[in-house]
Amino acid sequence: MDAIPSTMTASVLREIGVIALEERAVPELEPDEVLVEVASVGVCGSDVHYYEHGRIGPYVVEAPLILGHEVSGRIVAVGPDVDPARVGERVAIEPQRPCRRCDFCKSGAYNLCSDMEFYATPPIDGAFADYCKIQADFAFTIPDSISDDAGALMEPLSVGIAAVQKGEVKPGDTVFVAGGGPIGLLAAQAARAFGARRVVVSDINPDRRSLITSYGFEALDPSGEDTDAIQAHAFIDATGAIPAIVAGVRATRSGGTVVLVGSADEIPLSVAEVAMRELNVTGTFRYTNTWPIARDLIARGLVDVDSLVTHHYGIEQVEEALTATGDALKRIVRPGVRRVEEPELRRGR
Amino acid sequence: MDAIPSTMTASVLREIGVIALEERAVPELEPDEVLVEVASVGVCGSDVHYYEHGRIGPYVVEAPLILGHEVSGRIVAVGPDVDPARVGERVAIEPQRPCRRCDFCKSGAYNLCSDMEFYATPPIDGAFADYCKIQADFAFTIPDSISDDAGALMEPLSVGIAAVQKGEVKPGDTVFVAGGGPIGLLAAQAARAFGARRVVVSDINPDRRSLITSYGFEALDPSGEDTDAIQAHAFIDATGAIPAIVAGVRATRSGGTVVLVGSADEIPLSVAEVAMRELNVTGTFRYTNTWPIARDLIARGLVDVDSLVTHHYGIEQVEEALTATGDALKRIVRPGVRRVEEPELRRGR
Amino acid sequence: MDAIPSTMTASVLREIGVIALEERAVPELEPDEVLVEVASVGVCGSDVHYYEHGRIGPYVVEAPLILGHEVSGRIVAVGPDVDPARVGERVAIEPQRPCRRCDFCKSGAYNLCSDMEFYATPPIDGAFADYCKIQADFAFTIPDSISDDAGALMEPLSVGIAAVQKGEVKPGDTVFVAGGGPIGLLAAQAARAFGARRVVVSDINPDRRSLITSYGFEALDPSGEDTDAIQAHAFIDATGAIPAIVAGVRATRSGGTVVLVGSADEIPLSVAEVAMRELNVTGTFRYTNTWPIARDLIARGLVDVDSLVTHHYGIEQVEEALTATGDALKRIVRPGVRRVEEPELRRGR
Amino acid sequence: MDAIPSTMTASVLREIGVIALEERAVPELEPDEVLVEVASVGVCGSDVHYYEHGRIGPYVVEAPLILGHEVSGRIVAVGPDVDPARVGERVAIEPQRPCRRCDFCKSGAYNLCSDMEFYATPPIDGAFADYCKIQADFAFTIPDSISDDAGALMEPLSVGIAAVQKGEVKPGDTVFVAGGGPIGLLAAQAARAFGARRVVVSDINPDRRSLITSYGFEALDPSGEDTDAIQAHAFIDATGAIPAIVAGVRATRSGGTVVLVGSADEIPLSVAEVAMRELNVTGTFRYTNTWPIARDLIARGLVDVDSLVTHHYGIEQVEEALTATGDALKRIVRPGVRRVEEPELRRGR
Repeated sequence: MDAIPSTMTASVLREIGVIALEERAVPELEPDEVLVEVASVGVCGSDVHYYEHGRIGPYVVEAPLILGHEVSGRIVAVGPDVDPARVGERVAIEPQRPCRRCDFCKSGAYNLCSDMEFYATPPIDGAFADYCKIQADFAFTIPDSISDDAGALMEPLSVGIAAVQKGEVKPGDTVFVAGGGPIGLLAAQAARAFGARRVVVSDINPDRRSLITSYGFEALDPSGEDTDAIQAHAFIDATGAIPAIVAGVRATRSGGTVVLVGSADEIPLSVAEVAMRELNVTGTFRYTNTWPIARDLIARGLVDVDSLVTHHYGIEQVEEALTATGDALKRIVRPGVRRVEEPELRRGR
Repeated sequence: MDAIPSTMTASVLREIGVIALEERAVPELEPDEVLVEVASVGVCGSDVHYYEHGRIGPYVVEAPLILGHEVSGRIVAVGPDVDPARVGERVAIEPQRPCRRCDFCKSGAYNLCSDMEFYATPPIDGAFADYCKIQADFAFTIPDSISDDAGALMEPLSVGIAAVQKGEVKPGDTVFVAGGGPIGLLAAQAARAFGARRVVVSDINPDRRSLITSYGFEALDPSGEDTDAIQAHAFIDATGAIPAIVAGVRATRSGGTVVLVGSADEIPLSVAEVAMRELNVTGTFRYTNTWPIARDLIARGLVDVDSLVTHHYGIEQVEEALTATGDALKRIVRPGVRRVEEPELRRGR
Repeated sequence: MDAIPSTMTASVLREIGVIALEERAVPELEPDEVLVEVASVGVCGSDVHYYEHGRIGPYVVEAPLILGHEVSGRIVAVGPDVDPARVGERVAIEPQRPCRRCDFCKSGAYNLCSDMEFYATPPIDGAFADYCKIQADFAFTIPDSISDDAGALMEPLSVGIAAVQKGEVKPGDTVFVAGGGPIGLLAAQAARAFGARRVVVSDINPDRRSLITSYGFEALDPSGEDTDAIQAHAFIDATGAIPAIVAGVRATRSGGTVVLVGSADEIPLSVAEVAMRELNVTGTFRYTNTWPIARDLIARGLVDVDSLVTHHYGIEQVEEALTATGDALKRIVRPGVRRVEEPELRRGR
Repeated sequence: MDAIPSTMTASVLREIGVIALEERAVPELEPDEVLVEVASVGVCGSDVHYYEHGRIGPYVVEAPLILGHEVSGRIVAVGPDVDPARVGERVAIEPQRPCRRCDFCKSGAYNLCSDMEFYATPPIDGAFADYCKIQADFAFTIPDSISDDAGALMEPLSVGIAAVQKGEVKPGDTVFVAGGGPIGLLAAQAARAFGARRVVVSDINPDRRSLITSYGFEALDPSGEDTDAIQAHAFIDATGAIPAIVAGVRATRSGGTVVLVGSADEIPLSVAEVAMRELNVTGTFRYTNTWPIARDLIARGLVDVDSLVTHHYGIEQVEEALTATGDALKRIVRPGVRRVEEPELRRGR
């Protein structure tokens, strides 16, 4: 293991629309933390949103911020309370730091902790940088069979798992997912891994529908087809689009669950429908205790995350990664590389 | 036991706004049914709605219909499959007849049965009549300590119990109820009986707020006070008023449950709020297996239903009962009486 | 469809150890029943037990009884309340008839109904006969892709599914099953289908351990290996052997569940272990609402039941099927056949 | 607030059967801890057991140990991470310190944490001393309406609450409790507060049965009466006596729950009964998140803990408190007092 330098290169959001490389101090560890040399960082819609708007709801970027919260890497140093044998481990990071003391934390719902510190959520830095730090129990060892990219994508897969858990998906269920992007495809794969008998995914984009089909799901064009007959036990919205949510609510059977993952502003909810059909309309905010499940599903081949990756970028290309258009599915930044000459890959699936 | 006549007097909704007494055949029993001589029938908002509008959502009055579904009485005859010893029992009626064979019925959610036959829901007759019939297991024996009126009001109490069950109210919880009418007051009492530490009930009407206070609850004026600080584990809407529901959603703590009992048309639901705070927005449609609980709560004095009754009417006064205005709380029709000279009682509480 | 004869051939348990063919009247249908021409009937340990001992616990054979409760066949007639289009359907039978009226039935736990009538449980006849009858909603249509034998084995698979449901098996779990017989192998397969990460099955018989391995599970010799390290989320006992249960309890992690499916008389349960480790020790009695799940798991290839079948018999050979020794796994009687010349099959797996 | 001395008087278990006063250093605080001047400490059977046997199961007293884990007092100092405004607060102590990092802790089951440090469990000191320390979030503010003794008895009440939670007691349930000692009486009161319709408590001691009756419960003599007819939804054993547990299992209805709180060595459990009746046999180990509920139940008068106290002792009389015989119910040590001249009180109830 090489000596750890005192400074590192980081890609910093200085203000709306301005990303720049900076030389930053390598984070200092608290006793229960590990230092991770970053391998892969997925680009999330929230990173793009902070870049473009400088805020998401109540979270406002008021000082330079390192983005990136879908992270894998290798432990290169540990605090004094952590087993030094962990140095060298390849890990996937659950990018949150709850207080562990409030009622939510002590009852297992630490994602609702009001003192949460979460990567790339102001003022907490993320991982578009050479190094990042995390408490040891939020760094999950990954086996060689899981790639760096797959380790990073355990984060969006966790979003999908949390949605499926909230939807109480079980063997024999029908699950309807709106949105054939990364979250939708991962939620759909998680639903299948949880035993769903039938998984239907809708997307208005025909290319996305081809992609949906390639993963073995039924693809549905929401503009043309009636969803009422689906009679889903669970509907998971990964679009945030109001028509998609309204159609999904109609597609849900009586007593079923609607899980809102996407971030629409406000939806018109039919009280009569919710009450008379006893629907459960709920949502997910991040996740709790999902990394071991994500790791298991990937390691057993029940969920394929690598095939979602369409582009790779180096640390100098973060802005390019945040602003790319076209048919990208999942973009990965590899901070250990300065530039990737040809970022776009042919999708492997 | 007197001989049962072949015909009976019934108060029939002939068309919108037209109620008339008719001489009807006494219902014939199937083998598993009991015939009940009706004692008390509560007047529900849905009865008024059918009277005024001829429909509720998909249920349309297309033929003369006997209204009334909050019912107590005495068993006067039983079908051949029912224990004849039940003749003479005072009973409260759970006014539904599920198919018992569909997936919902066989998994305990018989209220969602799509073949349900429910009193006073077209084309099934209710109980503003001398007699009505019900399957034996939906006629619950009541002790002498429970009055006829209280037996009838086990139906709206069941609505309150179902709401509290859906809200998963447990000892120590804070419960916020919108609406100080019969359903709101019964839901609030049920919440207290289920162990709620703090029960807050809102109503825009100051007289209702006095009433709320008289039952030992905190009364809140929704027009003047901020509800955000309530941090309710469960919010139960018994108003159907959009501002009340919006305020209630805000008053619910993260991870809490919103139970919609009232029948607003459509509410604007903040997806960000539902997702980021992991609220559960749901509703209740009638109830399952609540009569034994209702009976127990009344018998032990944990819930007071008798004090909700403000008016009594005879069978000739059903239209008067349906159209009364003013500060009525709960009106009761006693079909065994032709007319009550002075319908209004002083509330006993 | 041929005309249905008025009599049929049945294999009847006349008294302990005495099986004889009899000519019986074809069952008469109640309005909600279907008549099924029997195709395949699995032989269960309980059939053998009745044959050898004339009783199981409180159930005593006091009159001639037709055994056999793992049944598939084809509907050949329906009662007047059943859709006549169902005639001709291939079906798997859920062999129970609950009262549908008691508290258990109305809350979804109809398997606990004290008025249950269950196939081959005195005095209710089973299906070692040309025909049997069942209420229409307990006859589940099966597609052509599911064999007659597989249709019959949806019954023991349902036992396994119920055990896995009771054990709350979910993705990522470790499940420990004691016993490599049909129930153990089906419970293990169900556990895998419900997402279990690791499934360990123990058997003292080395041939059974080979079989366990052939299904892709870890095989364990309980006499030689320590089970404490397994740390199972759920332990399912399919042996009824006290040492197996004791070892399984030790193998279960704190907060985990022990599901007793086998029928040992009495086990010594360590209160300290149950209390200090908050184990949940429970069992299953038959099943509720599992046929649709069983059908789905078989149809999707997630569970393989056909490979469990080692022997076939005709209606004249029921006694031979009940008394066979050796390495049989699952024996099937085909009542439509008089004799099978060479009952033993090579296991296909 | 007076200055805190550097040393304190503590009553120490030096070896089996030997208790002596020692002058000990006042505990030093970690940043997240508070120092509590002890007011009342309840004497628990486990304290007596350590005094008499030097061990409980795997926990062995290998060095001098301060006993006492049912504790109330007043905060007199706080660590730097704790709000200094808490100095002066009267508090009840939840006497555990989980690791907050393991799977159990992060999923809300911190009582199962294998790195737990628990008061008066070797080698962690308890509170028969002038001062004790605890992490701030495990010190719960109590209002003036809750006495020092009641604050201490929130610990055994928490045991009762945890049992009732594990038994899933809800309105309308019948609950059967074995044992009329403090735990049994507190579990029974908790069951009533959670809405149980009927609470039956058994004890072989007629004086205890009188006491049971005085709290408003049905008292039952287990030696003379058959319990099978109770049909309890939940049975809570607070005796550890095998006959009591066996009777309780029989008294539990199908699908019901048996909660083992007492510490019998091993019970003979009928597998047939557990399986065929789908009983859930489980236990409780301490508690999680119960103090707010305990505080609420006491403050609202739904549970009476003060009347359980029969004796008071000073710090010099701990050995007397541990060895007292006769009809004591709950003994309290008040470390701030040297000696109580007349330890026995007349029970107030």
